[in-house]
Amino acid sequence: MSKIPVAVLGATGAVGQRLVSLLGSHPWFELAGLCASERSVGKPYLEAARWLLPEEPPAFARSGRVLPCEPDSRWPLVFSALDADAASSIEETFARSGALVVSNARSHRMRADVPLVVPEVNPDHLELAKGQRYGGGAILTNPNCSTIGLVLALAPLARAFGLETVRVTTLQAASGAGYPGVSSLDLIDNVIPFIAGEEEKLESEPLKILGELRAGRVENAPFGISATATWVPVIDGHSLVVSVRLGAEVPRDALLDAWRSWRGEVADLALPSSPRRPLAYREERDRPQPRQDRMAEGGMATTIGRLRPCPLDGWKFIALSHNTIRGAAGGTLLLAELAAAKGLLGEKMKL
Amino acid sequence: MSKIPVAVLGATGAVGQRLVSLLGSHPWFELAGLCASERSVGKPYLEAARWLLPEEPPAFARSGRVLPCEPDSRWPLVFSALDADAASSIEETFARSGALVVSNARSHRMRADVPLVVPEVNPDHLELAKGQRYGGGAILTNPNCSTIGLVLALAPLARAFGLETVRVTTLQAASGAGYPGVSSLDLIDNVIPFIAGEEEKLESEPLKILGELRAGRVENAPFGISATATWVPVIDGHSLVVSVRLGAEVPRDALLDAWRSWRGEVADLALPSSPRRPLAYREERDRPQPRQDRMAEGGMATTIGRLRPCPLDGWKFIALSHNTIRGAAGGTLLLAELAAAKGLLGEKMKL
Amino acid sequence: MSKIPVAVLGATGAVGQRLVSLLGSHPWFELAGLCASERSVGKPYLEAARWLLPEEPPAFARSGRVLPCEPDSRWPLVFSALDADAASSIEETFARSGALVVSNARSHRMRADVPLVVPEVNPDHLELAKGQRYGGGAILTNPNCSTIGLVLALAPLARAFGLETVRVTTLQAASGAGYPGVSSLDLIDNVIPFIAGEEEKLESEPLKILGELRAGRVENAPFGISATATWVPVIDGHSLVVSVRLGAEVPRDALLDAWRSWRGEVADLALPSSPRRPLAYREERDRPQPRQDRMAEGGMATTIGRLRPCPLDGWKFIALSHNTIRGAAGGTLLLAELAAAKGLLGEKMKL
Amino acid sequence: MSKIPVAVLGATGAVGQRLVSLLGSHPWFELAGLCASERSVGKPYLEAARWLLPEEPPAFARSGRVLPCEPDSRWPLVFSALDADAASSIEETFARSGALVVSNARSHRMRADVPLVVPEVNPDHLELAKGQRYGGGAILTNPNCSTIGLVLALAPLARAFGLETVRVTTLQAASGAGYPGVSSLDLIDNVIPFIAGEEEKLESEPLKILGELRAGRVENAPFGISATATWVPVIDGHSLVVSVRLGAEVPRDALLDAWRSWRGEVADLALPSSPRRPLAYREERDRPQPRQDRMAEGGMATTIGRLRPCPLDGWKFIALSHNTIRGAAGGTLLLAELAAAKGLLGEKMKL
Repeated sequence: MSKIPVAVLGATGAVGQRLVSLLGSHPWFELAGLCASERSVGKPYLEAARWLLPEEPPAFARSGRVLPCEPDSRWPLVFSALDADAASSIEETFARSGALVVSNARSHRMRADVPLVVPEVNPDHLELAKGQRYGGGAILTNPNCSTIGLVLALAPLARAFGLETVRVTTLQAASGAGYPGVSSLDLIDNVIPFIAGEEEKLESEPLKILGELRAGRVENAPFGISATATWVPVIDGHSLVVSVRLGAEVPRDALLDAWRSWRGEVADLALPSSPRRPLAYREERDRPQPRQDRMAEGGMATTIGRLRPCPLDGWKFIALSHNTIRGAAGGTLLLAELAAAKGLLGEKMKL
Repeated sequence: MSKIPVAVLGATGAVGQRLVSLLGSHPWFELAGLCASERSVGKPYLEAARWLLPEEPPAFARSGRVLPCEPDSRWPLVFSALDADAASSIEETFARSGALVVSNARSHRMRADVPLVVPEVNPDHLELAKGQRYGGGAILTNPNCSTIGLVLALAPLARAFGLETVRVTTLQAASGAGYPGVSSLDLIDNVIPFIAGEEEKLESEPLKILGELRAGRVENAPFGISATATWVPVIDGHSLVVSVRLGAEVPRDALLDAWRSWRGEVADLALPSSPRRPLAYREERDRPQPRQDRMAEGGMATTIGRLRPCPLDGWKFIALSHNTIRGAAGGTLLLAELAAAKGLLGEKMKL
Repeated sequence: MSKIPVAVLGATGAVGQRLVSLLGSHPWFELAGLCASERSVGKPYLEAARWLLPEEPPAFARSGRVLPCEPDSRWPLVFSALDADAASSIEETFARSGALVVSNARSHRMRADVPLVVPEVNPDHLELAKGQRYGGGAILTNPNCSTIGLVLALAPLARAFGLETVRVTTLQAASGAGYPGVSSLDLIDNVIPFIAGEEEKLESEPLKILGELRAGRVENAPFGISATATWVPVIDGHSLVVSVRLGAEVPRDALLDAWRSWRGEVADLALPSSPRRPLAYREERDRPQPRQDRMAEGGMATTIGRLRPCPLDGWKFIALSHNTIRGAAGGTLLLAELAAAKGLLGEKMKL
Repeated sequence: MSKIPVAVLGATGAVGQRLVSLLGSHPWFELAGLCASERSVGKPYLEAARWLLPEEPPAFARSGRVLPCEPDSRWPLVFSALDADAASSIEETFARSGALVVSNARSHRMRADVPLVVPEVNPDHLELAKGQRYGGGAILTNPNCSTIGLVLALAPLARAFGLETVRVTTLQAASGAGYPGVSSLDLIDNVIPFIAGEEEKLESEPLKILGELRAGRVENAPFGISATATWVPVIDGHSLVVSVRLGAEVPRDALLDAWRSWRGEVADLALPSSPRRPLAYREERDRPQPRQDRMAEGGMATTIGRLRPCPLDGWKFIALSHNTIRGAAGGTLLLAELAAAKGLLGEKMKL
């Protein structure tokens, strides 16, 4: 089998670079296009992108030039790491051209006919894409970087016990804002207790992801979420301080079991980017921590700790996940793998 | 009037140094004793203490030597910045000797006969001290560093509308752990989602402080608190992410009014360390921030921001206060001023 | 006497804000104009500027609107905190209109007819301005932020012993790049060993400042400088690791005496922003440190420490000075005060 | 061939943990003993050690208990990550018992009969150990963490052109002080311009390492070194700002060639921990940086950048190397591999 040629839209940004890096040695996909905005087009990729990762860029990126964000029939699959402003229409143009667009941008996430998918949680939502009217193409979306860790921690609880309320305070890493993103003058010896649009995403996206597919539509999950989002002086890894009221009274071990036994819906598909275990629970009293736990399973696992009863009701815990790997590039890639495994790439794809 | 001679117990530690610094030019009190543990006794103060503050130590500290933590009849008032282990018995020894002990340690805070006081909030609780059996002496306590900011933000709401539930996540500054305290290896590019004993204090102390004095006893306030405490890479200034359910449904302006009009119970006493306004509300969407707001009113005011409805119930906001000034040394000093103004120093004190 | 009305050019940037703050309560000057680039003109100042300082902006700034950078006859004195790109022509326009321009920009610093002045070091260089052909106006310049601390530490040594070589490695604070300046992704858990143009300034400006005025021209000081400049994760305060070869062999005490006895050339002028002592030497083995020493004398003094012989030749020491106060806004203000005291504002100025 | 059983002395500390981690899957050595100080003896290793690394501890460490630092005939090779205080006599006890001690402690480094070795640079110095009088055992030493990066950068220049003077300013990472090491209160928004004993090591160790072995003794290299050492807020990776005066005038390309072509003395031995290339030169104007370059070749390569002429004489450049991998645990391990390959383990070792 030959690999599927793919392009990255917004390849010069922080998430784009992570995608380029992860695609450098992917077993199914072959990096074939590096697309970015007008001012980068034509430049050698490494001149247009200020390469931010410690690992070396893959060979294709070292020699490639930036192309415009225009469809090319040689790319049946494109990854979008575009800013929301640009993503809205460019992604539609690609979809109309027949490409499968797997996007990390927020633009289309909440559309009724666009799947918003965490592969381990709601792979069945891919079916929503059937409602899209792009000819052969389609748009799939990856959730916001802080949503993903939250949803992964919540999913086993929602399935096992039901959820009534979720309260979350995030301590988010600077890489979530891209590069240059947050000024060092704002984050040395400081906390910024506000992230534009973040709380809205945290309060809405999980309801769609954990919602039920009925008659080709997603019915939002019936619980409430309250979120506060902050920036802290951390490079990578969003910490989530969570409290939940469950639908049933259960002992602590029941929650631990729910997390530990959970493999997600796609364990049997052996997707290349799947973590062996999407969730890890740590018993130490001061974990998870960003620097210690963000790279669990190559940055694809979410780590949970400090489960304890909430004096008001329900349970409290801390969750942590890597915001640019699991929360962006890695999650997007895993979603594309799921789509490929499910046959969404049609005849082009025989894995 | 001559000043009242005072000693600082635990004068070499981080909070002790702040007290020493604040007492260097106090209008009522005169620094007369620097006491610390055995291993420091006899040494010049600045040799025993690794001076941590940017401002120069006061003259008394530059020339003084460390004394043992033993009562001295020349000190009618002593400040305790001792560790809880040492504080428990040493403070009692001083109280029995007839001194008024104003303590920042947690040892005696929750005793039924020990006032736990934020001067603006519950000055009447000083009366509890009458129940102490130390002869002429007494012990008064200042709350935990994160409790104080929380209580200051809650008090006007509790008074005006009643409180039903309080949920708080703290993002605490490293100075809260004293010196050397938290290792730099734990706080560069990291968050530690656990502070020993802190959540317990946050869930209990506010109930006592906001409780009602009846027949010489404090009846705890009748609401519930759930807390999560974390260390973040910040030097000074604890950020509190708070949500409250009030006893009544009120519009946003009512809360703002409650905070803005609140002057606290002691405004008319003109205590030297009183902030002109104990609370400030900032309208900017990304405030309060530790580096910007911790020094409001010399570090004695609490700054609030981001008041908005909670999608689940009640209101959410952010509060910030300086943990080693208002939350420790400054709060302790203010409490001593209150005690002096209320005549607890007896004949020794004619202000 | 009434105050002299002044304007700040580039008032919305990081240095401009410091100037605005310092001018808020100046005994000689009265803030009368807040000028900035086209996109800010007409906006309320606090909307155009993201206010970065913990202290509140002065009243004029709270109510003022941004004006264009165009001369106004009511401002005999203007401060320039413009970027070098903009400064070059705008400053000339103001000078031609008759204003005295005191600039923090690098544009005109190295011109033979432009004084580059550290008031304590080379106030006589103001005479250079006579060679300028702007009618009544003139341009005076303040050195680069890292140059100033270096020159203040070197001046007493140069005067007393002569200098042969100077080697300096800087560990510079992020505020030196303005706002947003350096990305937090570049400065959390990292060092950037390069600052564009900085080493060139460090290797040239001190030679002019420490040069000799002869026949209306400055003859560069006859020693050599080698510099390396780095960014470190610090908000304010540039640390300078310096080694010098002197013109004479002298004992350690001679250097300490030279620094300690030095008051600079303008001590008798009692300029409002003059530090009482421009240099402080600290004996502790681990000082100066940015967080401890940057605010010495309101941020206007340079602190030196760790003087010790260099095993190769000469002496080694560490110097520290506040880069946005002494190194930018405060230094510029002090220079304007010097110019006023020397009568460069002509009839307009009767102090 | 079966693996050689080894023990780690000081296994619970920061460097000890790195050794334990690296030995978890070593092709030649098998971790067989975890030794530490009295207060840890008998405890499960993970209870005695606060595990600091993001990667999981190896199986032996997960199940093992801490042993006392006493020789055991089953360990022909022991690694010492002891503090200098403890190392001095314990290492001798082990050597006398017949073990080969490969030490990261400074205690014996400067002894005339103790090899101080960077394998790529001076493997021939192992011969010094013949002069030791420990029966079958011996002590070999790994240099100080900042020395190693400096020596690796200097060695090719010293060999090719000769060195006359070396000046170095270090910006050192907090992990160099072990755990808890430097307080976060000293390193958030701060620089500490002093590291006890570090400048002395930097000014002496390179002269021994780059010295010549003659008649069984090392003659120190005949150049001078001047060092200044500072702590900066970085987790791992020491940055070195270096200037050198060479023995000959050579063009820039000659230095680059010297670095790039250099493979070190042991390239043909294929030691398991050898980096493929011990030195990398990066052309970007702002490299090397700690976060980007410390993990080059698994943390075993030194990265150099910014080579440019010094205006005073010679050349300036920046070097960076990982202080706890190459500079401590990894360097010590590589040295043990060298010793094994050279037959110093005698009959016990048949690779």
